[in-house]
Amino acid sequence: MNAPAAVPPAAWWDAFFAPRGIVIVGVSRDPSKLGFGLIRNLVKSGYAGALHLVNPKGGMILDHPVYPDIASVPDPADLAIIAAPAAAVADTLRAVHARGIRAAIIASAGFKEVGKEGAALEVELGRLAHELGVRIVGPNCIGIADMHLPMDTTFLPPPATAPGEIAFISHSGAVCGAVTDIANGRGFGFSKLVSLGNQVDLTETDFLEALAGDPHTRVITLYMEGVGDGRRFVDAASRVARQKPVLAIKVGRSAGGRRAASSHTGALAGAEEGFDSAFRRSGVVRVDTLEQLFDWARALAWCPLPRGRGVAILTNAGGPGVLAADVVEANGLELADLAEDTRAALRRLLPAAASVANPVDMLAAANAELFAACLGILLADPNVHGVAVLTPPPPMTPPEAVAAALLPVIRGSTKPVVVGLLGASLVRPAVQLLSDARIAVYTFPEQTIAALGVLARRAEWLATAAPSVAEPPVRGQAALEALARARAALGEPGGWLAPEDAAAVLEACGIAVQRIQAAGSAAQAAELARKLSFPVAMKLASPDITHKSDVGGVVLGLGSREAVEAAFETVMRTAKAARPDARLLGVHLQKMLPPGQEVIVGAVRDPQFGPLVMFGSGGVEVEGLKDVAFALAPLPREEADAMLARTWAGRKLGGFRNLAAADREAVLDALVRLARLAADFPEIAEVEVNPLRALAVGQGAVAVDVRIRISGAGS
Amino acid sequence: MNAPAAVPPAAWWDAFFAPRGIVIVGVSRDPSKLGFGLIRNLVKSGYAGALHLVNPKGGMILDHPVYPDIASVPDPADLAIIAAPAAAVADTLRAVHARGIRAAIIASAGFKEVGKEGAALEVELGRLAHELGVRIVGPNCIGIADMHLPMDTTFLPPPATAPGEIAFISHSGAVCGAVTDIANGRGFGFSKLVSLGNQVDLTETDFLEALAGDPHTRVITLYMEGVGDGRRFVDAASRVARQKPVLAIKVGRSAGGRRAASSHTGALAGAEEGFDSAFRRSGVVRVDTLEQLFDWARALAWCPLPRGRGVAILTNAGGPGVLAADVVEANGLELADLAEDTRAALRRLLPAAASVANPVDMLAAANAELFAACLGILLADPNVHGVAVLTPPPPMTPPEAVAAALLPVIRGSTKPVVVGLLGASLVRPAVQLLSDARIAVYTFPEQTIAALGVLARRAEWLATAAPSVAEPPVRGQAALEALARARAALGEPGGWLAPEDAAAVLEACGIAVQRIQAAGSAAQAAELARKLSFPVAMKLASPDITHKSDVGGVVLGLGSREAVEAAFETVMRTAKAARPDARLLGVHLQKMLPPGQEVIVGAVRDPQFGPLVMFGSGGVEVEGLKDVAFALAPLPREEADAMLARTWAGRKLGGFRNLAAADREAVLDALVRLARLAADFPEIAEVEVNPLRALAVGQGAVAVDVRIRISGAGS
Repeated sequence: MNAPAAVPPAAWWDAFFAPRGIVIVGVSRDPSKLGFGLIRNLVKSGYAGALHLVNPKGGMILDHPVYPDIASVPDPADLAIIAAPAAAVADTLRAVHARGIRAAIIASAGFKEVGKEGAALEVELGRLAHELGVRIVGPNCIGIADMHLPMDTTFLPPPATAPGEIAFISHSGAVCGAVTDIANGRGFGFSKLVSLGNQVDLTETDFLEALAGDPHTRVITLYMEGVGDGRRFVDAASRVARQKPVLAIKVGRSAGGRRAASSHTGALAGAEEGFDSAFRRSGVVRVDTLEQLFDWARALAWCPLPRGRGVAILTNAGGPGVLAADVVEANGLELADLAEDTRAALRRLLPAAASVANPVDMLAAANAELFAACLGILLADPNVHGVAVLTPPPPMTPPEAVAAALLPVIRGSTKPVVVGLLGASLVRPAVQLLSDARIAVYTFPEQTIAALGVLARRAEWLATAAPSVAEPPVRGQAALEALARARAALGEPGGWLAPEDAAAVLEACGIAVQRIQAAGSAAQAAELARKLSFPVAMKLASPDITHKSDVGGVVLGLGSREAVEAAFETVMRTAKAARPDARLLGVHLQKMLPPGQEVIVGAVRDPQFGPLVMFGSGGVEVEGLKDVAFALAPLPREEADAMLARTWAGRKLGGFRNLAAADREAVLDALVRLARLAADFPEIAEVEVNPLRALAVGQGAVAVDVRIRISGAGS
Repeated sequence: MNAPAAVPPAAWWDAFFAPRGIVIVGVSRDPSKLGFGLIRNLVKSGYAGALHLVNPKGGMILDHPVYPDIASVPDPADLAIIAAPAAAVADTLRAVHARGIRAAIIASAGFKEVGKEGAALEVELGRLAHELGVRIVGPNCIGIADMHLPMDTTFLPPPATAPGEIAFISHSGAVCGAVTDIANGRGFGFSKLVSLGNQVDLTETDFLEALAGDPHTRVITLYMEGVGDGRRFVDAASRVARQKPVLAIKVGRSAGGRRAASSHTGALAGAEEGFDSAFRRSGVVRVDTLEQLFDWARALAWCPLPRGRGVAILTNAGGPGVLAADVVEANGLELADLAEDTRAALRRLLPAAASVANPVDMLAAANAELFAACLGILLADPNVHGVAVLTPPPPMTPPEAVAAALLPVIRGSTKPVVVGLLGASLVRPAVQLLSDARIAVYTFPEQTIAALGVLARRAEWLATAAPSVAEPPVRGQAALEALARARAALGEPGGWLAPEDAAAVLEACGIAVQRIQAAGSAAQAAELARKLSFPVAMKLASPDITHKSDVGGVVLGLGSREAVEAAFETVMRTAKAARPDARLLGVHLQKMLPPGQEVIVGAVRDPQFGPLVMFGSGGVEVEGLKDVAFALAPLPREEADAMLARTWAGRKLGGFRNLAAADREAVLDALVRLARLAADFPEIAEVEVNPLRALAVGQGAVAVDVRIRISGAGS
């Protein structure tokens, strides 16, 4: 008997997607029951392997004999589908295993989705599957389907979809039902459909990895409600996305809310920032709506990738052209400047009143041949990397005639062409004609252009090298020692490090920190300030007060001994009044730095994906403005660069109007080092530098305020 | 003979939408010609009035006699449709007028859309129509249709839509064709359809105003490529939108680009800011996509308005529920907390594993009766203001059975219920059943929730009073005099006012300005600074240099005579080096102000809508961050308040973390006064206060830097 981990992926794959025989346990002859739907679909799907039904009552269902028990089932039998009541599933699984079957789809509900008792049943089921070495899809799923084999183990209302190039992996069975019917209505099909259910064993990541090798699948789409092992998902998706486009809709945005956190980084790092960072790192395209998922999947499955962002719009009217042109830029595309040759060729074919600029408007009288000829001309233009053809039902020509004329031109092109048939009833035959020929067709101009956009982004992403994390730039040993000292000084299971200790950790990572020194009295502070050289900044020292400026605990620009002494007294008095319970240990002093741009860098641990690093607008405004970018740590330099490009705080480091450029490189370096620190030391729960002051170009960046929280046993 | 202005709206309306007889000039018996399509559609539409065809060749077409000329047409004849070649249109119009007809639809193309010659023809046509007193729709349009009369004067491919409650006014004829077919496919219809063409006479504003009184129209939708008279549109839309929802898609976002402008306000005020401001002021709902236009129109036409934002989601599966719940907040809605009674009632009906929280998940076995019963329970909950029912094709129940069961519950409710049927093929009969019963049904969860969102926003907007602009808060006479003095000082036809003059104009409006005084030499500056009291700020005085800080022309915090003298020399030297050609007149000095929050307020003239006022983040960051809001001037105080709420700069005036609150009221006041200035003095092309410093609460707001540009003859 093998433990699941010892089974190579190909082994379980074949049992699910190339079974020689399937056993259905819990069949019914009542057409209103799920146990009937399973048989109906398997029979209708044209599954060519052996089909064995099991029910103690025996008899025949849909011309198939029903065996009284699993043991009686003859060979071949590679896969079991279990629709027994939840309480009977474990025994059924034992019987399935005893019959020599090593793969099961458990359709039964009644597990963790129904509460505590179900959850206990599910834990037991997982343990049992592992012990027996039976790989499981489910429970609480609607099964899997393979349109090419063919095989449909679901109980979805028929018909299944036509065989297609898009695989769909879903945490929701109902969404499988919805997209099947939508696919049928919109003229596309699936390669494989996987309803994962509660994932007691096989997960979205297992199927994602396995589908990379499926010859029928060109695009993988995911409906995700969460992720089991975040980092494993990222690793797998990073590999798969280089081979095939992976698109995901991740739901549950509203569910988690923000976690309670005392750093800005923590407050801003909700669950969605983790998923966004994971998708970005791995090259998974995150979509916003269910419709987009399949709009984009069709384009990626069916169209060649463009070699640039220049698009031409071909239409027979002004309105559709301007609707499309309006969204070109928002989709990261450009309206191609048509070459003079192209315009001349168009002019020869088109009436004088037509527009040979881009969008090309052939006018309402354009017939099918003219559509085809103009498309050919546009595709020959070297400035055109992709074309959107848009038309309402033409006044004089049936839409299917236009579609038929366009078809050979589109198939003969190495550039992507997408079609917008702006209608519904009249264009239905044309939509089917194009879809059958694997040409991406849409209803609205905005959708049509968006499809070209995702193709261009995919092409550009594939052209970039896979990001690699450079050698640890942090001084590992030094950081280790600094952290050990800091933890010892903390003398507790976890909590915020003292500022000096936090500064020492950062310095050990190679990040410059503004020197900071403690003074316990006004006289001591004045003497220290003299040594640091005036002017200095003063900050309250208290382990109990996180945001010092909230209690008047920060004073800047102290230029003399007298000023320092007076400020010391004021700070103590104000803090005492504001927080009588807090321990006040005196103040910290820092020399004032030269001016520069202030940013925030930080890191926090995401429960799904581990260390996340953040960059954004510094100071108090970071939360108000939400001008921040997140990424997984450790951080490839290219991605750090992209984080800066995504934020105003990062863009203005290069200078803006009379704002002088700052040392962008030093900020990048600090960000990469901080990410490495967070990645290498899992005990760091949160680290935040706010602000990091970026000095003039070449002058470096200095951490002005550093906070590090160490996780304790309970945190 | 009446000039068009003398014809009351009702008169032209009846000629177009209640003609006793219609003459078609330029008919054809060739089915591939537009002149045939016109007759075909009028006949098919079931138009009950007289139908007269005109063609020199005579004969019969579709059983209607063809008259050789217009003069021969018998009574009644109230409306002419002209499909003659462009060059013949003017003569045709004369003949139409001679026959006593005072309304014409000119379908013919070949006018301004084809270039200079066509434009000249069009000007002539407009002049002629005005002279003759014939009201015109078009030219270059596809006509109008009334599904209730019925009457279809277009040549769109049939069928026309069913009679509905939505009117569509379009600057594009092709878009009329697209939406007609989409409406037919999605199961809704129109009340009236208007293709405006080149609008030589009647415009979108004319029809918008007239449709307010149309009993068949509940919602007015607009496809707009621009606007003729912006302020008239705003006035009309403001009145109409209080009576009926008005939705608009405005295209051409990409066309205009940003105008070249030397103020931040001007640089940020593109054409879209004008339209956004106009729509916001008038209560027109701007949609982003063509699909949204009709998704939302159906909801507004068919659903009662909710009395709050609380929505319940009723579904038979987890996935659709979470997809819907995810977008609740983004649509301005809240998931209702279900009352304990509601949950108890649901628990009695539903299996134990079902969820009686919101979203309510009845589980996959839910049948039609259960859908209806649970919907009834949710609608009875006082916390629920609207419900979204979502289902994929249910595994055991036909979708049309679910629809039929829901129907009486929805019709019997005073709360809005929208339905998401997540499918295409299997749900088609259910979609038609619901649509025929005027129940809004959608394909995707995201669309379904968005429809509830627009209903809630409409309800909230109707509950607010129409904004009224308060009495002019600017001191009219004082401002007039200050401006006259400033213009005299300018001594040119237009340009930037000298800083002292600009400051005087603002002060005359009741906006506090930081005192500013000029000094021509270092010694003079030092003496002036002593009088103002230290510390002072120094700024270069030069009519040729707009952004003084770009050339080192701004120095802050000068605390002594010596510092002022040294700074004067430095400023002169640096500016000379940077701009050797510029006139350097010395410096301006200001006393340093107490700290505060800095914002920008400004106004600029929009070519469509006149004076626009802007509020946003001050200083150099305004352009980088684009944290700005625009509105039409003059500005109701409620709208000024909303501008502050829309921007981070405005929100933080109320204080944020350790950032102290500033004098928000003073900022509001300054914004309203500035808007009035811009509205009352059309010669002010641009005015910008950057920064306006908002001092501590109760301390006011002070304009630190004021710039005003007066338009000259040529600017």
